[in-house]
Amino acid sequence: MLGASGPTRRYVCVVQFIQSVGWNPAGNALRILDQTLLPESELVLDLVQVRDVVEAIQSLRVRGAPAIGVAAAIGMVVAFDDASLKQKTHNSRALLQDIADQIAGARPTAVNLAWAVNRMLHVADTVSDDVLASALRTEAQRILHEDVVSCQRIGEYGESLIADGARVMTHCNAGALATAGIGTALAPVYVAQSLGRASHVYANETRPLRQGARLTAWELSRAGIEVTVLPDGAAASLLRDGAIDLVIVGADRIAKNGDVANKIGTYPLALAAHAHGVPFYVAAPYSSFDFATLTGTTIRIEQRAASELLPLPAGVNVYNPAFDVTPAELITAYITDRGLFSGLFSGTVFPVAPDAEA
Amino acid sequence: MLGASGPTRRYVCVVQFIQSVGWNPAGNALRILDQTLLPESELVLDLVQVRDVVEAIQSLRVRGAPAIGVAAAIGMVVAFDDASLKQKTHNSRALLQDIADQIAGARPTAVNLAWAVNRMLHVADTVSDDVLASALRTEAQRILHEDVVSCQRIGEYGESLIADGARVMTHCNAGALATAGIGTALAPVYVAQSLGRASHVYANETRPLRQGARLTAWELSRAGIEVTVLPDGAAASLLRDGAIDLVIVGADRIAKNGDVANKIGTYPLALAAHAHGVPFYVAAPYSSFDFATLTGTTIRIEQRAASELLPLPAGVNVYNPAFDVTPAELITAYITDRGLFSGLFSGTVFPVAPDAEA
Repeated sequence: MLGASGPTRRYVCVVQFIQSVGWNPAGNALRILDQTLLPESELVLDLVQVRDVVEAIQSLRVRGAPAIGVAAAIGMVVAFDDASLKQKTHNSRALLQDIADQIAGARPTAVNLAWAVNRMLHVADTVSDDVLASALRTEAQRILHEDVVSCQRIGEYGESLIADGARVMTHCNAGALATAGIGTALAPVYVAQSLGRASHVYANETRPLRQGARLTAWELSRAGIEVTVLPDGAAASLLRDGAIDLVIVGADRIAKNGDVANKIGTYPLALAAHAHGVPFYVAAPYSSFDFATLTGTTIRIEQRAASELLPLPAGVNVYNPAFDVTPAELITAYITDRGLFSGLFSGTVFPVAPDAEA
Repeated sequence: MLGASGPTRRYVCVVQFIQSVGWNPAGNALRILDQTLLPESELVLDLVQVRDVVEAIQSLRVRGAPAIGVAAAIGMVVAFDDASLKQKTHNSRALLQDIADQIAGARPTAVNLAWAVNRMLHVADTVSDDVLASALRTEAQRILHEDVVSCQRIGEYGESLIADGARVMTHCNAGALATAGIGTALAPVYVAQSLGRASHVYANETRPLRQGARLTAWELSRAGIEVTVLPDGAAASLLRDGAIDLVIVGADRIAKNGDVANKIGTYPLALAAHAHGVPFYVAAPYSSFDFATLTGTTIRIEQRAASELLPLPAGVNVYNPAFDVTPAELITAYITDRGLFSGLFSGTVFPVAPDAEA
């Protein structure tokens, strides 16, 4: 670790076209854009019941590590308020814990889910019953706001990597749809655009759920950024042909040593980028670093249903992990809301960044 | 090149479950199993018109380099016979050339297509008009028979690589469906099975047309071989986990230096196998070697329609190459109908095998 570095921050205004997760106008429901239906239809869902929040997270109606964290926080608020109204006799602390347990258990790999739920529970522990509901609401709003700011900062720290005309490859969707703000991997692209520099994004399809083809292509296209979709297996050919200037992906969890858990297919992409000397960046909020996890090998990988690979012949097995782990030595640098980090190639343990306590 | 090597050939009987390409019983049509409909339905098509043969090749109703060669040869015979009957006044040589041109132009990358058409034309050049039709029929039958024998030999030369319980990864479909016989990449698996050794095949889905999930899984399942389907992006994770003993893929064209053009996604798979020390084999008939092509970089890669990646948001570009090129240095050995070849790592030019003139 050589410490944080990066350009002097420039404060730019980026128009955010999409709100993937937030409150409904009345403030009594979690409002999400149902990502399972994109790009064919744009359906907004207002969720109040905890079972609906859990279902939305599990079935990827809301997805992307930062967006899941925000959804979990807002979901806790609205589900707690709703259940409190209906069950006057219920122990409010037990009710909150039950809601928290259900939401935290929805998906195991994204560190942000447990992180957001724990933040909410921590706030609950510090206040009395009469202000519990309002304290939870304030904390959820803070988590939402922090994510918006975090995305903006990732974009500002990363934008200098995007030259005018840059050809940027990405995997899955780590854009506005994956966060409450302008995204993580796509934030530098959006900020560069607002500074007048065009880029061309190559979006890997990302099987099995096609988030690259369905979501990344959709949101970039809406923002007027040129996008080309390709099958995951074709990425290595473009990298070899010198057709890509840099790769930027998101992260669901980053271990202390810099290993990155991200959408399945990220690791072979990193291998191909490495083979052809193409810089490979991971963009994520600093909160995606999980210092309690020493290396990527111990990260639990969520296995998803065989049904995601249908149609299939009868009687065949399916291996369908949601994530893979990219070792730190394949990662050129980390673009975070606290600056650019690099220097992990020595295999040293990832330290706290200079302004980590700020 | 260290020359051909391999086990002493053992002659074993392999039950062939599937006939993907051949004649109809009356011998007046090209009979294929429509591979675009598998695994949902098994539709047999009898094709007579040249436009139907071309359409079947272009739309991958018949696919796999060896099967395309056989389909082209039989297709020329039946289309020529049919057109000759209907057009008594037509110049038979011009008619044959026209049919040959249409079929040869159906797909550009598979060397077997041009190779089979040229063999047929060469035979035509050596006979008089009165025996032209029967000479063409005999040659097509010879091409079919040679492919069946070639697959069997590839299986016999490769079977010693398949230990009992071997975990074999493959990409796309280079099995019985891709040939007139028991396949190329899957032939060693079938021969090992007939010798009493079970294996577990990991079939990469192979986007965009899912030949691994639809075809490889289907034919292995029919043959009673255990099969697991995975998204292409998940292969590297299995290779890193030590869950795969060897990789075997087919080839659409092999350059003189040993570079291999094969289904898109083969190259990143070879990179991942190399990164984890897993042997990577290419199985193909010796006729897939194109000695006129010095290296893989000059192989023309077919670009396929954007529609193969639908649904997509409006206005996005698509990069959809049918094949990629795997450099010879990533290939452990070539399993051919003339033995196992290795020793290409020195970068020397690929020589003719010892019995090439046999």
